[in-house]
Amino acid sequence: MTREELYDNIKKKRSFLCVGLDSDIKKIPEHLLDCEDPIFEFNKAIIDATAKYTVAYKPNIAFYEAHGIEGWQSLNKTILYLNENYPDIFTIADAKRGDIGNTSSMYARAFFENMNFDSVTVAPYMGEDSVSPFCQYDGKWVILLALTSNSGAFDFQTLVDSTNNKTLYKNVLETSKKWGNADNMMYVVGATKADMLKEIRTIVPDNFLLVPGVGAQGGSLEEVAQNGLNSKCGLLVNSSRGIIYKSSDKDFAERAAEEAEKMQKKMDNILSVNGLI
Amino acid sequence: MTREELYDNIKKKRSFLCVGLDSDIKKIPEHLLDCEDPIFEFNKAIIDATAKYTVAYKPNIAFYEAHGIEGWQSLNKTILYLNENYPDIFTIADAKRGDIGNTSSMYARAFFENMNFDSVTVAPYMGEDSVSPFCQYDGKWVILLALTSNSGAFDFQTLVDSTNNKTLYKNVLETSKKWGNADNMMYVVGATKADMLKEIRTIVPDNFLLVPGVGAQGGSLEEVAQNGLNSKCGLLVNSSRGIIYKSSDKDFAERAAEEAEKMQKKMDNILSVNGLI
Repeated sequence: MTREELYDNIKKKRSFLCVGLDSDIKKIPEHLLDCEDPIFEFNKAIIDATAKYTVAYKPNIAFYEAHGIEGWQSLNKTILYLNENYPDIFTIADAKRGDIGNTSSMYARAFFENMNFDSVTVAPYMGEDSVSPFCQYDGKWVILLALTSNSGAFDFQTLVDSTNNKTLYKNVLETSKKWGNADNMMYVVGATKADMLKEIRTIVPDNFLLVPGVGAQGGSLEEVAQNGLNSKCGLLVNSSRGIIYKSSDKDFAERAAEEAEKMQKKMDNILSVNGLI
Repeated sequence: MTREELYDNIKKKRSFLCVGLDSDIKKIPEHLLDCEDPIFEFNKAIIDATAKYTVAYKPNIAFYEAHGIEGWQSLNKTILYLNENYPDIFTIADAKRGDIGNTSSMYARAFFENMNFDSVTVAPYMGEDSVSPFCQYDGKWVILLALTSNSGAFDFQTLVDSTNNKTLYKNVLETSKKWGNADNMMYVVGATKADMLKEIRTIVPDNFLLVPGVGAQGGSLEEVAQNGLNSKCGLLVNSSRGIIYKSSDKDFAERAAEEAEKMQKKMDNILSVNGLI
């Protein structure tokens, strides 16, 4: 998917919401457990209920990998369902992969060729040759970890480089700009670090930022928007647990839709107030 | 597997060789392509031929993931075959995973519970809560990326922290020592950076180092040993392409065994000269 197509969908839906499909067999409604593939049935219902408020879906791959072959089957069915029924929706394999060059190519093949995801999250620790293979596909995206939403983000990401006096995550942003561009590279910036977003936006003015951590992790949508919007929007704000586990009863999909709609309405307002739609 | 058990096997085999199972359908001998599961048949033959020279096997997960469900089936069969037939051999899922706490737990479940690997390689960028879930299993190991063997290692891993004047990879070593210990944490240090091994050894004197990059990537076993051995050995030196693709003909397993034996003989000599066996 191109940047223009993603913007078109943001304008059409009046939303920059990404729903995280962190679908956990221990948390999905009990009545689904009798289905042949409970995780896929859960995803399908969540997708159908929330798609009109949503511009992106982000399955976190760990939740599928934890179930072995069966989990990969659920994931395959989910991405196929999205591609066939909602081709205008951006898809993110939240996999946080990254390895030496010839190996990263294998991961790119897995997510871009076999499963036709639009994007993959990638960890930057191993540097250029671990990231570049993901940039070689037209219309596909790397979403590089910059400043993550978890407590461990402060262990290394905020260390200050003695040569340029900049934090590691700023070095990741600046160095990786040479490996890709705003048409094939996005960055993960946690909503729990909204105050740092303003400066991040000056380093990567045109790139999309994928912002997890709103909702269950405590980040504020308003602060994220205030500091992170660019001249065209430039944000995908993710909520996972706050939407998909709103109810553990038969009304789980309706309740998820209500939550997604609430987020979409706030986003509509944010986009309108800022003259972006 | 405990540290003691791993040392027992190193002494018994007179080897600290790890064979990397980066098994690529495009590189394995053609005659195997008629088998039901060519990758597994290749691995099985390589394992049977090299096991007596080897203390560890390291499938790189990307090579399996690239084939989707079929690839995961090959991987499952491979780890089951190793567990059943070579229970004294240490197994490494070279997956380079890492995510926020609750998600890393899912990855730990995948590799430690479903597949019964002894260890998983983990990327440190997301900090403590991304690594700790892998340390919660008795007899299982985290192998944390410190200084990797690829060219991209110099993009971020060697940035110098302005507070303590130490490189990022040294900060990773020092900080992560609080999260685990020499009985559940090893580190990846590339053989292509052998000159940096001596200092690394002073920071983590007791931990095992997993050293890739000998062979196809150009690292020297002798230099690695000279700088990286500790008082009990403390090294697992990996070779992948240099062993498993020595021949692409019907003699591939015999030729792989010859290469493994050559490495083992050198290692026997190194261990003897240093009074470790």
